[in-house]
Amino acid sequence: MPDAVELIRAKRDGARLSDGDIGWLIAAYTRGDIADEQMSALLMAVYFRGLDAGELQAWTDAMIGSGERLDLTGLSAPTTDKHSTGGVGDKVSLVLAPLVASCGAAVPQLSGRGLGHTGGTLDKLESIPGWRARLSNDEIVTVLRTVGCVICAAGDGLAPADRKLYALRDVTGTVESIPLIASSIMSKKIAEGTSSLVLDVKVGSGAFMPDLASARTLAQTMVRLGNGHGVRTSALLSRMDMPLGRAVGNAVEVEEAVATLRGEGPADLVAVTLALATEMLRLAGITADPGAALADGRALSSYRAMITAQGGDPDAPLPVAPHAEVVTAEQAGWMTALDARAVGVAAWRLGAGRARKEDPVSASAGVICLVKPGEPVEAGQPLLELRADDPARFERARAALAAAIGIGPHPPEPADPILERVPAGGPGLELAS
Amino acid sequence: MPDAVELIRAKRDGARLSDGDIGWLIAAYTRGDIADEQMSALLMAVYFRGLDAGELQAWTDAMIGSGERLDLTGLSAPTTDKHSTGGVGDKVSLVLAPLVASCGAAVPQLSGRGLGHTGGTLDKLESIPGWRARLSNDEIVTVLRTVGCVICAAGDGLAPADRKLYALRDVTGTVESIPLIASSIMSKKIAEGTSSLVLDVKVGSGAFMPDLASARTLAQTMVRLGNGHGVRTSALLSRMDMPLGRAVGNAVEVEEAVATLRGEGPADLVAVTLALATEMLRLAGITADPGAALADGRALSSYRAMITAQGGDPDAPLPVAPHAEVVTAEQAGWMTALDARAVGVAAWRLGAGRARKEDPVSASAGVICLVKPGEPVEAGQPLLELRADDPARFERARAALAAAIGIGPHPPEPADPILERVPAGGPGLELAS
Repeated sequence: MPDAVELIRAKRDGARLSDGDIGWLIAAYTRGDIADEQMSALLMAVYFRGLDAGELQAWTDAMIGSGERLDLTGLSAPTTDKHSTGGVGDKVSLVLAPLVASCGAAVPQLSGRGLGHTGGTLDKLESIPGWRARLSNDEIVTVLRTVGCVICAAGDGLAPADRKLYALRDVTGTVESIPLIASSIMSKKIAEGTSSLVLDVKVGSGAFMPDLASARTLAQTMVRLGNGHGVRTSALLSRMDMPLGRAVGNAVEVEEAVATLRGEGPADLVAVTLALATEMLRLAGITADPGAALADGRALSSYRAMITAQGGDPDAPLPVAPHAEVVTAEQAGWMTALDARAVGVAAWRLGAGRARKEDPVSASAGVICLVKPGEPVEAGQPLLELRADDPARFERARAALAAAIGIGPHPPEPADPILERVPAGGPGLELAS
Repeated sequence: MPDAVELIRAKRDGARLSDGDIGWLIAAYTRGDIADEQMSALLMAVYFRGLDAGELQAWTDAMIGSGERLDLTGLSAPTTDKHSTGGVGDKVSLVLAPLVASCGAAVPQLSGRGLGHTGGTLDKLESIPGWRARLSNDEIVTVLRTVGCVICAAGDGLAPADRKLYALRDVTGTVESIPLIASSIMSKKIAEGTSSLVLDVKVGSGAFMPDLASARTLAQTMVRLGNGHGVRTSALLSRMDMPLGRAVGNAVEVEEAVATLRGEGPADLVAVTLALATEMLRLAGITADPGAALADGRALSSYRAMITAQGGDPDAPLPVAPHAEVVTAEQAGWMTALDARAVGVAAWRLGAGRARKEDPVSASAGVICLVKPGEPVEAGQPLLELRADDPARFERARAALAAAIGIGPHPPEPADPILERVPAGGPGLELAS
């Protein structure tokens, strides 16, 4: 049997861990035979030394193998899913899952909650009265079969090793490691049983990966891992230097998503959603025009059916915050910047996000971006609307926004929200497509 | 209040921790407010990033400040002590402490037990019937006042942070870090209250630091730390490529130490002991000839008084192992090598050492080096005598020795056991001497 201290020292000293060593480490940690203090030391050694492609494959295998794997092979439609590394105002899933389902795919989106300055898809949907995030595996399959898409919480049975490791990384300064991030994301997505997957890797101040080079490495690492595990996987790198759309919060993002499904969405949100939909349908082998499905109301119908199937009332009014304040322009000109991270932190401080995973979130708090970069402003014009359940929260939210807004004499260059594409068949990959 | 995760991330990313941060970390960890898994991640980050001189000073300060500091200022004799990083057959303390005391210094040697292939001074002395390692602080001062030297266990009140950190490092692959080793050793020695200190940093296969460069860095680091804390500190680097003297074990090393105190010691042990004694007396400001004190029986008298003062009977027969085997020469020639580590591991496997700190050790097991490098051998001549309580232990001990012995056609070059001296007033140090 391997020895935990020997394996920590080996990784620390730059040696390669064997598949057997890695399988033992993850399994022994999951069942409690390796102590947290040993695993955190190993994770820090991995932070410094990395994992090579083979080690990462074995690590991800072991995380998947720590729990069950959903069997979606009985569905008649091809399965496809999307994962975003998280951004500010990123309500793409709410539009994308029903849109792609309405084009003929089955979208099994097992999702998470928000932490810190980025929101979580489940938190947003929970602002809809009656909607349930927790479904049994049988319910997931039933909703996929009848509606074509489901957005729900990943059950405790999927990749339990990841749940335990993520909680440990969160308190030990070992989150920011590309192999650990990649294996965490991909183990859950592979265990979820999707046949194909598109990764939306966000880049910029509001993203987990602020710089393009790291985001590209993460995307390439995950694309390789997915394809190595038999899931057709590609990635888009998309801008996260300003909020996506105009709404940042929970209920306010659901409203904006529904408006988008009605054909009244903000241009950047529509562009990112259609780019991801096109990629998902390509991987799923479906020829369809997602733009048409968005325009003709098919995507909206799928959304309403999905919400209803999960106990929600798509016609129920959403909660509205009792208090609002505005941030106004100090000068006239063109808005040149609206820092995504600052707006995310402001929404978090207003109550839309949580600092610890057990904290509650406010359904109605958030920020509405009344003006976005590229639009003209008058001095004194309201730029942001802040909403909160508790007016005491405005002051700290405003503080987060102090340097967030840029106003200049000229409009900024328009920028495509999609930066790069990392295709499924990357270098060195043999794909049976 | 600082945040543990922020400090882990800061050190991980190569930032400097402030004195206040370090003081908080050590104090909060000692009282249980920082979890083991956070501290082990931080220790691994320190392994990779190191601590600069200021951080190390603060870290050591905090470890000292976690407990009490012995007050030896009431003694009339100047205090001086020695610390060895540990070697095979290293019974120097048993000769050195009474020798230096017999020259007029007070030697408060708070010592430890052996772990792995190197023996511990307390384990050796405990083979003497009646001898007690645990003394109260008052008893320590009384023995120092009446005898001039004491060798005893460091009480729980001295540097408790180090005890907790060392136990954590032992299971998390974070032992082999020069700043962590230096702060661990020096915090205990500074808390012990000695005014001066000589470090015996061993170099070679049987040492903790096998290479000269690392040993030199460790020595320089500790010398700087000691002088920075007001303890006049210097270091000798000494060879540990073969066992020191001929006996390796517990009772067998006491016997060899007593023989040395009678003037019948092996040349290498005498040379290292006198070099360390000279250095200790120099730091203590005492003009004396330790060679004369060894030759005329004064050192032996101090030894007998010390053993008696701690409940031991210096005339009681020591335990003898019931089983013995010899390892013989496969060819004639000159012994060119006798690997210290291999002999240490063999003695450990015979029962003289422990794998875990709660394991018992055999008083009588060990290895006697009948021939040492530089001596001629006949084919079939006994080279090593192995001693054990349980004859089942011989096989694994012999396996450890398989490649330990070198025999060649010519005698090896004689080598000085002392390699280098690191003086107290090193570069950049301002010493009030």
